[in-house]
Amino acid sequence: MNGKDTGDFRERVRQSFARQGAMGMLGAELTRVEQAIVEIELPFDIKLTQQHGFLHAGVISAVLDAACGYAAYTVIEPDASILTIEFKVNLMSPGRGERFLFRGEITKPGSTIIVADGRAYAIGDGPAKLIASMTGTMMVIRGREDVTG
Amino acid sequence: MNGKDTGDFRERVRQSFARQGAMGMLGAELTRVEQAIVEIELPFDIKLTQQHGFLHAGVISAVLDAACGYAAYTVIEPDASILTIEFKVNLMSPGRGERFLFRGEITKPGSTIIVADGRAYAIGDGPAKLIASMTGTMMVIRGREDVTG
Amino acid sequence: MNGKDTGDFRERVRQSFARQGAMGMLGAELTRVEQAIVEIELPFDIKLTQQHGFLHAGVISAVLDAACGYAAYTVIEPDASILTIEFKVNLMSPGRGERFLFRGEITKPGSTIIVADGRAYAIGDGPAKLIASMTGTMMVIRGREDVTG
Amino acid sequence: MNGKDTGDFRERVRQSFARQGAMGMLGAELTRVEQAIVEIELPFDIKLTQQHGFLHAGVISAVLDAACGYAAYTVIEPDASILTIEFKVNLMSPGRGERFLFRGEITKPGSTIIVADGRAYAIGDGPAKLIASMTGTMMVIRGREDVTG
Repeated sequence: MNGKDTGDFRERVRQSFARQGAMGMLGAELTRVEQAIVEIELPFDIKLTQQHGFLHAGVISAVLDAACGYAAYTVIEPDASILTIEFKVNLMSPGRGERFLFRGEITKPGSTIIVADGRAYAIGDGPAKLIASMTGTMMVIRGREDVTG
Repeated sequence: MNGKDTGDFRERVRQSFARQGAMGMLGAELTRVEQAIVEIELPFDIKLTQQHGFLHAGVISAVLDAACGYAAYTVIEPDASILTIEFKVNLMSPGRGERFLFRGEITKPGSTIIVADGRAYAIGDGPAKLIASMTGTMMVIRGREDVTG
Repeated sequence: MNGKDTGDFRERVRQSFARQGAMGMLGAELTRVEQAIVEIELPFDIKLTQQHGFLHAGVISAVLDAACGYAAYTVIEPDASILTIEFKVNLMSPGRGERFLFRGEITKPGSTIIVADGRAYAIGDGPAKLIASMTGTMMVIRGREDVTG
Repeated sequence: MNGKDTGDFRERVRQSFARQGAMGMLGAELTRVEQAIVEIELPFDIKLTQQHGFLHAGVISAVLDAACGYAAYTVIEPDASILTIEFKVNLMSPGRGERFLFRGEITKPGSTIIVADGRAYAIGDGPAKLIASMTGTMMVIRGREDVTG
């Protein structure tokens, strides 16, 4: 964060997302930023698979965590930051599809601890299919230069 | 798996690991395969970071999940396979280091459900530092052609 | 389960609930049984508290687990049973209230693995307050006499 | 906590444990308190069972949470307190035995967040059997009168 910050959470989320090497490497795109809700999309890529050719559980987790973390990001003050303390992922169906949608949403806001829930969907022919869910616990960090933004 | 399989779990784990697009993309190396224990190592790479320059939680999860899943793999019959049902990760310290060691170990073997625990360490100057832990629940899959190996 | 079972899941859930020593001890009441949704209510009791006088996290977990498990119960065949493999609980607000409502709901049905989500609310003066959430993984058990019903 | 506190963590843990209505109701006994490790034991009681006559998952969770929470308690300053933010439990074997041992241990101490791991064992004829494991995230609370001790 810098002095030009005007409290625009959408812009802060976009800037932070753009700095995540891992999201860029995966080909993930930030497609929706609302207060308490963030969506990220990811096209299928053979590079992102596990040994059966489905989207890797770790990739699913990485993007769900990002969606949940940025959802938390939208509800904190501009100069604070978010660290994921822990999360749990349930993998429900194979990650098979042309695109994937990851949605993070705040379940419980808080001044120190924020709980977010995420859902991942495979999108292709036919209806979107729920492939995974996450519950994550995030901590709001203030006054630590090394983890702002 | 194919007809040449001789029950050598180390070879099976290596072959399966080599087929994981995601592990190759991360630069992860399989460094130890024992019955019920698997270790994977990963050199630091800026591509694998979150916005603060630390190893991304999703990357940590992906490799821990692989270590736990392959640990499960070492204790099942040759023609069965492993699917991760769910896992929980606690992120304890920033992923800062030159290399990272991920260790998966079987806590509870079983014919259908296997519980594995994983630990991730940052390695650099000084002692190895615990950066994350995982508990994962794996299911043993038999007789499904699409998920063998 | 016995030969008189007519496929009435509501009755099966009620009978099983009545056999749970732990639910009786807590004073929990089964107040709603729909396909894929079960609600349990619990009046506040000083016996159920932790050291600060709030509802004990273990009690919250016990009843959430029951609500999730019985939600799973409503979607399986009459002679199968449900075992909880694992669950995660997030405790969001102190368990302070006159009554508590626990709601379990199926997120992902399945022939072997069922994923359920639960929410616990404190009810008193004013609006219901979310105090905890659960995600649980249940296994459908068939053909084991010791765990039917 | 009061003015007579002499920094004796064993005594603090014992006093707090004695104030937990839920632990008394279950018949749980505090049997070991070391720095970073707490053990609680519980005799089998039909009142504590689920519908198959095994120890209820919620009871297992309640006591594991207490063991983990008190393990955290031993490593904080005398006037601070501990709240469980979240935990995950894996139920590995039926809770069948004459007695049960619950052990909580600190995996990662911290000034704000403490991670603890717990294990539950059934004790009867033959060797102790691992029935469940827990990973819990605890928060250190300071300066809130309603949650001290």
